[in-house]
Amino acid sequence: MTFNIDKLYKFVGSKGHVCVGLDTSADYVPPSQRCKAKNDADAVLSFNKALIDATYDVSACYKVQIACYEEMGLAGLDTYLKTLKYIRDKGRIVIADIKRGDIADTAMRYAKAHFSDDFEADFVTLNPYLGMDSIEPWLKYAKDFGKGAFVLMRTSNPGMKDFEYLDLANGKRLYHAVGEKMSALAKQYKGAYGYGVFGIVVGCTEREEAAEIRKTYSDLFFLIPGYGAQGGGAKDAALLLRDGNGGIVNASRSIITAWQNENGNNDADNIFAAEAARRAVIKMRDEIREAVSGEIL
Amino acid sequence: MTFNIDKLYKFVGSKGHVCVGLDTSADYVPPSQRCKAKNDADAVLSFNKALIDATYDVSACYKVQIACYEEMGLAGLDTYLKTLKYIRDKGRIVIADIKRGDIADTAMRYAKAHFSDDFEADFVTLNPYLGMDSIEPWLKYAKDFGKGAFVLMRTSNPGMKDFEYLDLANGKRLYHAVGEKMSALAKQYKGAYGYGVFGIVVGCTEREEAAEIRKTYSDLFFLIPGYGAQGGGAKDAALLLRDGNGGIVNASRSIITAWQNENGNNDADNIFAAEAARRAVIKMRDEIREAVSGEIL
Repeated sequence: MTFNIDKLYKFVGSKGHVCVGLDTSADYVPPSQRCKAKNDADAVLSFNKALIDATYDVSACYKVQIACYEEMGLAGLDTYLKTLKYIRDKGRIVIADIKRGDIADTAMRYAKAHFSDDFEADFVTLNPYLGMDSIEPWLKYAKDFGKGAFVLMRTSNPGMKDFEYLDLANGKRLYHAVGEKMSALAKQYKGAYGYGVFGIVVGCTEREEAAEIRKTYSDLFFLIPGYGAQGGGAKDAALLLRDGNGGIVNASRSIITAWQNENGNNDADNIFAAEAARRAVIKMRDEIREAVSGEIL
Repeated sequence: MTFNIDKLYKFVGSKGHVCVGLDTSADYVPPSQRCKAKNDADAVLSFNKALIDATYDVSACYKVQIACYEEMGLAGLDTYLKTLKYIRDKGRIVIADIKRGDIADTAMRYAKAHFSDDFEADFVTLNPYLGMDSIEPWLKYAKDFGKGAFVLMRTSNPGMKDFEYLDLANGKRLYHAVGEKMSALAKQYKGAYGYGVFGIVVGCTEREEAAEIRKTYSDLFFLIPGYGAQGGGAKDAALLLRDGNGGIVNASRSIITAWQNENGNNDADNIFAAEAARRAVIKMRDEIREAVSGEIL
């Protein structure tokens, strides 16, 4: 059994840390291409394929935000599953950003939905609020098929301070309670490179405690959101990467709308937009690598 | 503008407290009916329609657990949307049990997805872990279209004690931090009967603090899971109902699989199963009404 967490670790080593976020609203598709398509869902699918073709050799993996597809209804979810399949058919890793969290019986159904058949992904994102019995049913697919998950610990949005940051009676913040449970789980279910098969989400919009979090959860691989449009930079992300590996850094808008910045207000075609995305990925990859060397060496 | 929370309040008054949970796995469809159907998604849709026809005059509303439909892939989501539409076309209220929670930009997309077009519901369930900026984007649809939401506070699963029950530095449990934020929101956005347009999820599997929770959050309407198969009873639920109104009590398996209990190991048709469901709803409705009178009077 090769765990997906190990495959991801190796991709980070060979391709860099960038996780391309395909949060592809139809508004991000170049207008001329959007007009040519049968409908928005088709426009997004064509655009996604161009983006994937142009970035898969310079990125570690993809994250697909299901909300952007649900927004387009059933046709959107058809594009969602075809996007996942397109990435997986290339032998690349896709994270389904679904942030699910439900009671055990329901979690089993969700796990079947997102780890097999139509919507099969390599990783999912999970929300821990309901407790560990909402996380554990997903582990069956880790044991049987190598699947992985990233559980929300400290996110990248301003609102994270409402609950995630609350001080507990033990003097620690709530997010550490999540981290500690996930660390305990990692001791039982670990891949070949020392990381638990399930990792955690740690945003890079907040520097406070970043180095401490990396050190404390040394056995957890991080999915790091908040880069680019949300305000995090390479140096912020680097604080969360151990020994140059141990995490992937997600960016969505700054990659998939890079064509708008490069091309002013002019329209573009998918090829131009995908090449602009590639340039944005390479720039981000190199900036993170440089920041990581600066942090570690 | 009539808020959905007010419509729900009135349905509770006239029809009782039962929220019928259409967590309709294909396994719950009578086997003979399942075999006759083109596929599982169609079998579930026919079964759902029979269940709705047989229960809409004796229940307050429906809750549809999207996981049971995602499990069947795209065809399942087609059944999901047709189930929602069937309920709404009857002028009845449907809660989309989707437990979403994401950063503001994404939450806006989810809100559009689940409050309009294909997947339009009257209420959704939301997960608060990411903070109030993951809840607030949904309010636009409350203000413009009367939509509602139930935010997870204290759920009904054993794992709730992992995080929801953690003691905060202020001496209160985490779930109270969620309740307090929702109570503050209710002061700004309130329906005609004194309840906030967004309510909270409070399970009835745990009696501890139940009466206190009802008293503390007197301006919040409760979605109460945990009845029946999960272990909660009428008296547990009654502790969470103020003045005989102020909440709905969800049951799924004990209603939709009632035909199995009534019919031993024999098969049934949808009509028999739906009538068994109706009997289960009426029994539950009456037990809760009786328990509520006992609590209040």
